[in-house]
Amino acid sequence: MLKTRTEQELKRYLEDRRVRIDRTLETYLPSATTIPTRLHEAMRYSLFAGGKRIRPILAIAALESVGGNGEEALPVVSAIELVHTYSLIHDDLPAMDDDDTRRGRLTSHKKFGEAAAILAGDALLTAAFAMLSDRDLNRTIPPAILLSVIDELGRAAGSLGMVGGQFADIASEGMIGTQTISEETLQYVHSHKTGSLICAAVRIGALLGVAGPDALSSLTVYGEKAGLAFQVADDILDLEGTEKETGKRVRKDGAHKKLTYPVIVGLAESKRLADQLIREGLEAVSSFGVEADPLRAIARYIVERKS
Amino acid sequence: MLKTRTEQELKRYLEDRRVRIDRTLETYLPSATTIPTRLHEAMRYSLFAGGKRIRPILAIAALESVGGNGEEALPVVSAIELVHTYSLIHDDLPAMDDDDTRRGRLTSHKKFGEAAAILAGDALLTAAFAMLSDRDLNRTIPPAILLSVIDELGRAAGSLGMVGGQFADIASEGMIGTQTISEETLQYVHSHKTGSLICAAVRIGALLGVAGPDALSSLTVYGEKAGLAFQVADDILDLEGTEKETGKRVRKDGAHKKLTYPVIVGLAESKRLADQLIREGLEAVSSFGVEADPLRAIARYIVERKS
Repeated sequence: MLKTRTEQELKRYLEDRRVRIDRTLETYLPSATTIPTRLHEAMRYSLFAGGKRIRPILAIAALESVGGNGEEALPVVSAIELVHTYSLIHDDLPAMDDDDTRRGRLTSHKKFGEAAAILAGDALLTAAFAMLSDRDLNRTIPPAILLSVIDELGRAAGSLGMVGGQFADIASEGMIGTQTISEETLQYVHSHKTGSLICAAVRIGALLGVAGPDALSSLTVYGEKAGLAFQVADDILDLEGTEKETGKRVRKDGAHKKLTYPVIVGLAESKRLADQLIREGLEAVSSFGVEADPLRAIARYIVERKS
Repeated sequence: MLKTRTEQELKRYLEDRRVRIDRTLETYLPSATTIPTRLHEAMRYSLFAGGKRIRPILAIAALESVGGNGEEALPVVSAIELVHTYSLIHDDLPAMDDDDTRRGRLTSHKKFGEAAAILAGDALLTAAFAMLSDRDLNRTIPPAILLSVIDELGRAAGSLGMVGGQFADIASEGMIGTQTISEETLQYVHSHKTGSLICAAVRIGALLGVAGPDALSSLTVYGEKAGLAFQVADDILDLEGTEKETGKRVRKDGAHKKLTYPVIVGLAESKRLADQLIREGLEAVSSFGVEADPLRAIARYIVERKS
């Protein structure tokens, strides 16, 4: 475990974990020469598009914060990234956000066609659960813990979590300015669409580390705050960032009349909110020792990142 | 366990199991008044559209064939139907088979729009794994067995199974008559697109029943044969059935230049093949006792059904 007290240390920490997660995913996923080759190519195209792996890294940091070992948990935490990647592919589809670029490259359906993009997403989501239930891959983790992780991810990613948030987001499009959109709706969308999976990542780390009830509930609060802060920061980036920095078309939220914090409560209030959420997240883990330093540093990184 | 020696007994067996499975799914799935209501409505619309629940019933029959008790396994076997339903919703999408009706009703995207249909499918797939990993729901089943079931379903439904078959099927469209379509490709598509999940259902029954290696491998052969026979029978039904009987637009396979057995090897040879597959499936479980009678009856039903 690194101390990550400086920005340099945090960078090293994130980069080290990112490389390990990439290697784990690279080994697990069928190669692009496996039949059907074009499907596996599409899955890999989106999975290895330069993602920051922030969700798996959060899981590792949460696991380390309760004294666990991140190395053995790599396959489990990496599976979270499969779910995240599938959600990006489906969100970009013409019937959804209709985006042409993502991380500076063509979106899946632009590159492989719509049918392939839908199926690549389906296959990545399915692969996440296959990866979590693979006993050979997760030899040192007791079955009951693997099951609790699957349960956590299944709930967080489903109709009462991430998919529910995406649905409410799509349903709210073009409704801005009408009475039906309230800050409450906005919070539902954000806490579910992005927050659920980020909070689940943190909780999965806690479950893997066999955290006691107090630590688990502290980490849950941290995860909720960090998840919401992440989305608020994303909205701010979308408004302020340049296309070069974020790798995707910016200000698309405004064009789509999409529900964002800056649109609803203004930019200044959004920044204040992001900072407040991070403070609350840090407060939740204030009783943790130096083992939680990476988790603390990542919280700050979430609102300070430029992409 | 019923003996199902007569057609009447089989009907009663299938109906009894179907009702229990429907009740289990009805209790598990969030109600249509749960937020986001329209998403849950869409999930329920497709899930409760009069499906025969043949996959969960096969799992129960396989479990009973090795002396197990179907009642406690109801949530686990019902989860297979969530995966099947999601695959139907996504297969019907405009980018895929572009179907307007299914089971005599509008398809999901025709009724709820494309975004909702994609998300309802995603949510049903996710719900399957949440259902399998729910310890309260599956109190009597050891975690290691639940994990092996999730592993089985995850592999069967993914890029090396069902999604792979659907991808190859879509990729082969319009290629009939060209050199690229062989009986080999046809067999790949069928054994994966439909066969994988049916075989997994049988194997999940065996896993739940803690079948020994010999029984498991016999049931695997039964499952492979039954799965392929099911798809061949479906192709024949598509050609011969009336729209009223099958509840979906018939002869669409020909119109789409879709890969089917009757198109590639002819109708008579397809019927011979379906019969042969069922004989081989029955042969595989010939050493089983009367407990396997439902499994035997279902094999015959698969090729003799009218819808």
